[in-house]
Amino acid sequence: MSDEKLCIDYSQLESVYGPLAESIRRLVDVSIRTEADPTTIAAVKDKIDSATEELEASARPDPFGVQLTPDGQTIAWGNAVVGLRNPVAPPLVLHHDPDGLVWSEFVLGAPYEGPPEHVHGGVSALILDHVLGATAHRPGKPAYTGTLTLRYRRRTALGRKLRVEAHVERTEGVKTFSVGHVADEDGVTVEAEGVFIHPRQ
Amino acid sequence: MSDEKLCIDYSQLESVYGPLAESIRRLVDVSIRTEADPTTIAAVKDKIDSATEELEASARPDPFGVQLTPDGQTIAWGNAVVGLRNPVAPPLVLHHDPDGLVWSEFVLGAPYEGPPEHVHGGVSALILDHVLGATAHRPGKPAYTGTLTLRYRRRTALGRKLRVEAHVERTEGVKTFSVGHVADEDGVTVEAEGVFIHPRQ
Repeated sequence: MSDEKLCIDYSQLESVYGPLAESIRRLVDVSIRTEADPTTIAAVKDKIDSATEELEASARPDPFGVQLTPDGQTIAWGNAVVGLRNPVAPPLVLHHDPDGLVWSEFVLGAPYEGPPEHVHGGVSALILDHVLGATAHRPGKPAYTGTLTLRYRRRTALGRKLRVEAHVERTEGVKTFSVGHVADEDGVTVEAEGVFIHPRQ
Repeated sequence: MSDEKLCIDYSQLESVYGPLAESIRRLVDVSIRTEADPTTIAAVKDKIDSATEELEASARPDPFGVQLTPDGQTIAWGNAVVGLRNPVAPPLVLHHDPDGLVWSEFVLGAPYEGPPEHVHGGVSALILDHVLGATAHRPGKPAYTGTLTLRYRRRTALGRKLRVEAHVERTEGVKTFSVGHVADEDGVTVEAEGVFIHPRQ
């Protein structure tokens, strides 16, 4: 790795690539709701294709994955749930409380729909997998999902404030047993429990 | 509902909105991999914001959800897994075999990343929830996820051909018990079983 690479200022890069991803999130959302006529759509499509070409001229072939900052912190740039650079990610901002609780508050819009006007059950599963997994992560020691069980109590609405939280119930050797849920302002909508594994080095 | 609305030609709309979503999927993918400089990013962002504004001028406030065609078929335009109009959806094209097997073959790129260069475990959960659920759907009788259990055997790579499949094991009253898995060319990576419920009308 070159010195130049070690000196990358990630906070500065965030201020460049974060707003780009946020713009694309807005485009994604509006593109699902628009009723624009075919002529407008064709013109907009050309504009988007030209934007893609400009970005592609300097695109790396592989995904951006987890990057390491000079001080050893990891940044999950491209992650499907928390990735600052990934327009598919809502993205969730995770909070880690001193007692081990991991939580996030967020609102999901049109791109996360399953039943009309409700969050896709699998999107709740995606988010719970990530947040339960985050309770098991340790610096430099990622944890992988072993099993995950979801119980859907009722539907989760789009466009409302949601909260996800999770905590560790117990650990046994390389296994961490975690529980958590998604809730709206009326209470829990989806419960989850999972076993997460730290692979032996 | 007006006659005009009843006469919407959905196959024609697919040919307008499908390519737009496909363009945005390419933009999403490239935006995660680009290393373009701040000046280029700013110019591209302006272009994207202008495209969003053009689409927003005629956007409905609510998501597009499930639309009904004149002949009573449902089209999940905005669905997070199969939605033709949803750039967040890969989208999966589901095949329903006469014996009840539901399957799809697909490749996932940068937007679906969890561990570096591998599919986010929660994305596999999202896809399995949808495909297991699809085994339980009947025309006009949607099924909702009751419980879903996932077992992760090993990691699933980005950029490789994947196959998901599911079938019904048994039904008990309003409950359908289904099983399925995600596999790559070397075999199963994630197994799932789920209980899906047809709400009493």
